[in-house]
Amino acid sequence: MWPGLEALPWRWAGGAALALGLALLVRGRRRRRAPRREVLFFPSPVTCTAALLGEPRPAPCPCPLPHGDSPLARLLRRLLSARRSLELCLFAFSSPQLGRAVQLLHRRGVRVRLVTDADYMALSGSQVGRLRQAGIQVRHDQESGYMHHKFAIVDKKMLITGSLNWTTQAIQNNRENVLIVEDAEYVEPFLAEFERIWEEYNPANYTFFPNKKEQK
Amino acid sequence: MWPGLEALPWRWAGGAALALGLALLVRGRRRRRAPRREVLFFPSPVTCTAALLGEPRPAPCPCPLPHGDSPLARLLRRLLSARRSLELCLFAFSSPQLGRAVQLLHRRGVRVRLVTDADYMALSGSQVGRLRQAGIQVRHDQESGYMHHKFAIVDKKMLITGSLNWTTQAIQNNRENVLIVEDAEYVEPFLAEFERIWEEYNPANYTFFPNKKEQK
Repeated sequence: MWPGLEALPWRWAGGAALALGLALLVRGRRRRRAPRREVLFFPSPVTCTAALLGEPRPAPCPCPLPHGDSPLARLLRRLLSARRSLELCLFAFSSPQLGRAVQLLHRRGVRVRLVTDADYMALSGSQVGRLRQAGIQVRHDQESGYMHHKFAIVDKKMLITGSLNWTTQAIQNNRENVLIVEDAEYVEPFLAEFERIWEEYNPANYTFFPNKKEQK
Repeated sequence: MWPGLEALPWRWAGGAALALGLALLVRGRRRRRAPRREVLFFPSPVTCTAALLGEPRPAPCPCPLPHGDSPLARLLRRLLSARRSLELCLFAFSSPQLGRAVQLLHRRGVRVRLVTDADYMALSGSQVGRLRQAGIQVRHDQESGYMHHKFAIVDKKMLITGSLNWTTQAIQNNRENVLIVEDAEYVEPFLAEFERIWEEYNPANYTFFPNKKEQK
């Protein structure tokens, strides 16, 4: 036998152990990725979002609008990262771009659920009717107070919340903020709040009095 | 010399080093206190907040309202923890309790600055006039869009933000959220946003055209 040959299996074993150790380290690091913490401020400059919203996949757009980054583009990108579920709890929803993003996710097989405010859902320009026609589940309040939340939860892991109603007026003209949050201390209570409201607004529980608000 | 006496200074030195080590450990732990992450959901049940807002110090109140905890009481407690500064950036501010808390902080010597929306500050019930009369600095927009933020920053370290306008309607009747946040990734951009708006709304920069919004 050549000298040193008897050590070969140990070398292989050593190499395998090193590779396994490295793989576990990388996996551990991936698991420990710091939670995303980002803030978007509005008003957002008007930019072309066609590339982001292109089907079947994003494609360049020749339109004359600027094609750079913007708070709206970043918000759309976070939403469009959904792969499994999207919970929406929105006081007002009339932005065509955000409506298109939600429809795109629905067509991709993401489970979308929308809770909204009864007084605002029927206003001209609302996206709610279109989303319902597209087959998305929508529930709304029957209360005298407003359902004033403005949040979304992506894949039960990322919370998108702030002052921004999902309207073109708010996006293009108002001073607004949106937080992107992955810390469980925020995501979990918001998920629980969504499920609580979703059950409470179940149409099976609706009351049908002519002047329901006065009779409460 | 008694046996072992020569070791005494070493024992003292050892004891002192141990005490110093413990003190540094405790200080290090204090410094590393996890950032506060809390969510408040509204509507809030009506509870008595007189004890929290008592002067010169909180005192028990004999009124018939419930005296337990509530989202409003927790929001007030976070605000009243301010010792040096309070930045307020509020679309609508008419809640008497929150107004009283802000006046209390002002009287305690906390530096309070308020940015608000021009269209809402003059509405009946607004706290803005009272806060100005009390000597608090207020600035407002001159824009066609709304100053729609609803956030406060306590001692430049704690951000309080969400969907909640500071009105009794919102507190008692609406579905609303408020996040209490100490992570620098959120607090710092909000502080920068406040300072940006504060400078932009400096009255020295006001324009005085009769139809200013059309002329912009």
